[in-house]
Amino acid sequence: MTTTATSRVHNFGAGPAVLPVPVLERVQAELLDYAGTGLSVMEMSHRSAAFEGIVQKAEADLRTLLGLKPDHAVLFLQGGASLQFAMVPANLRAAGASADYVLSGHWSKAALKEAEKSGRARVAGSTEASAFDRVPAQGELDLDPGAAYLHFTSNNTIYGTQWSAPPVPPPGVPLVCDASSDALSRPIDASGYGLLYAGAQKNLGPAGVTVIVVRRELLERTPGGLPAMLDYRLMAEKRSLYNTPPTFAIYVVGLVLEWLLGLGGLAEAGRRNEAKAALLYEAIDGSGGFYRGHARPESRSRMNVTFRLPSEELEKTFLKEAQAGRLDGLKGHRSVGGLRASIYNACPIESVAALAGFMGEFQRRRG
Amino acid sequence: MTTTATSRVHNFGAGPAVLPVPVLERVQAELLDYAGTGLSVMEMSHRSAAFEGIVQKAEADLRTLLGLKPDHAVLFLQGGASLQFAMVPANLRAAGASADYVLSGHWSKAALKEAEKSGRARVAGSTEASAFDRVPAQGELDLDPGAAYLHFTSNNTIYGTQWSAPPVPPPGVPLVCDASSDALSRPIDASGYGLLYAGAQKNLGPAGVTVIVVRRELLERTPGGLPAMLDYRLMAEKRSLYNTPPTFAIYVVGLVLEWLLGLGGLAEAGRRNEAKAALLYEAIDGSGGFYRGHARPESRSRMNVTFRLPSEELEKTFLKEAQAGRLDGLKGHRSVGGLRASIYNACPIESVAALAGFMGEFQRRRG
Repeated sequence: MTTTATSRVHNFGAGPAVLPVPVLERVQAELLDYAGTGLSVMEMSHRSAAFEGIVQKAEADLRTLLGLKPDHAVLFLQGGASLQFAMVPANLRAAGASADYVLSGHWSKAALKEAEKSGRARVAGSTEASAFDRVPAQGELDLDPGAAYLHFTSNNTIYGTQWSAPPVPPPGVPLVCDASSDALSRPIDASGYGLLYAGAQKNLGPAGVTVIVVRRELLERTPGGLPAMLDYRLMAEKRSLYNTPPTFAIYVVGLVLEWLLGLGGLAEAGRRNEAKAALLYEAIDGSGGFYRGHARPESRSRMNVTFRLPSEELEKTFLKEAQAGRLDGLKGHRSVGGLRASIYNACPIESVAALAGFMGEFQRRRG
Repeated sequence: MTTTATSRVHNFGAGPAVLPVPVLERVQAELLDYAGTGLSVMEMSHRSAAFEGIVQKAEADLRTLLGLKPDHAVLFLQGGASLQFAMVPANLRAAGASADYVLSGHWSKAALKEAEKSGRARVAGSTEASAFDRVPAQGELDLDPGAAYLHFTSNNTIYGTQWSAPPVPPPGVPLVCDASSDALSRPIDASGYGLLYAGAQKNLGPAGVTVIVVRRELLERTPGGLPAMLDYRLMAEKRSLYNTPPTFAIYVVGLVLEWLLGLGGLAEAGRRNEAKAALLYEAIDGSGGFYRGHARPESRSRMNVTFRLPSEELEKTFLKEAQAGRLDGLKGHRSVGGLRASIYNACPIESVAALAGFMGEFQRRRG
């Protein structure tokens, strides 16, 4: 028997995260026979015409959504953002050169750590002193005009902060962005990025595929002798089909991109995400201090809303009662505690409204 | 509307390959709500109790199937066998040391090439001179008693050859096996392997996850400073949950392992695969030379049956008519041409019988 959407919870998990129900229903319908091929996408050669169609459409839809020009290549790779932490310096930083990293949370520190293993990297700014409660301002950055690139993390899942606009690198220094937790959540000027990468499992699809957008001229930096699977230039030459790619994950990403286009693209996604975030920040700001946001207002994320209650005891009760009300995945990251509502593209406003309602009701009972 | 098994083709593709229909039906049924969680497995935190249960059961079932002792660790990683080609030398070969590679086809050459990028590697045997129509005999191997390890490819997908028993390394030299195309297809003595790896997309599940079985004492060889995602020791310490693993692919692998256990494990899988291969080799050997196998009889693969027809013209006609009869994926690899029937664990004997019948019928009409 096939289950339906009616049994589902409100999913606020930070990732792998909620997917659009129409996408899941389509995956379900096509699971044993994709488009009359008599095969599941999982059983299909990555060199077949059917899969070529899937990956080409996914790339084309991504290009449309981001307004990409031909001078950017699109790659679908494995290993998550964590492998990108190593691939970015291995490909873009020449021997002896240094790269700049802005620290705005756990994941940008992890990216820096990987870069330091294989060469020189500098901290170009950090808000760690205030527990990453905001992202640095442009004026606070100490930028190396000779850096191989400037790396930043556009949204900080754990702390609930987000850059309202990307940092501006010195002339000639490519901007590299880990957009794992806010990719395609609002319009961006993609032409301003040298390289942008995102693990799929928050806004783009299931875990197991990472989307990379890279300006083609940067591929000329890739040195000889890299392991094949870490070589951007090779992956671009082979259009992500050097070896067997994560075919099913790419297929689901393609369906999510198609869904997003159908919704109205990034402008509409941005409006929806803004409206969803506003519901929760209003619940926090209107609570008279019962709910306290971690992020400073000017750095608040539209993707991850982090907040505390007056006591850890109350936080536990909140989580327990929320869970009982089918509000799932609200526990904060183990490194910071508290509550976190992740409200990525596929999280419907109905779920957010249900949470905002619960927050008000919980405060009336327990506040 | 949900499609059913009746529309499906006979799938002889080399990988990503056919999956068991009961597994696909279960994935389909659980797609929007896994085990009453109200979530798809694709939407579930990798740190949730539900996913912990999935990955732990997958590991336990793999241990049962292979008879693994606690001194072997099991890892679920990304990047396919191609990333293992780089990870094996990066972790197991100390600076200055050399590793031995037996060449029995395209993929063992690719493994050697990656090993040569980062250090010393030797060819310990090769059958390239006879177009890889067999695997080397033990007596032909030139083994380095001080090698970091001895690497071989247990089944050669492109050429249709398979080792009937693994090569025997010198005392103290760990045996490393790329078993991507015959993992879990027959009983093996897992205790004899230092490290065994397999991309999932042939016998184990969908593309996007690689299963690694490694003797724990070898993890002590991992040097400091490796990229985190290339570090076996770290991946073992974190039980494959250092970062977000390919959760959905692991879930499907788990269902395939459960299906295999229900079938009767590797002994029964071996019997079935033997019977399937026999049907096709009998069709070849009984054709009076109309069908010519590429592999020498003593090295014939039970997984990939490669053969030629009297002319390329006839091969094209064969492929076209087979396709029309819903016999799919029979084209040989582009590097060698001809025909190839891949008959992995999930390929039912009914499909193989249909192909054998078609081969006889085609010969009567066109021979």
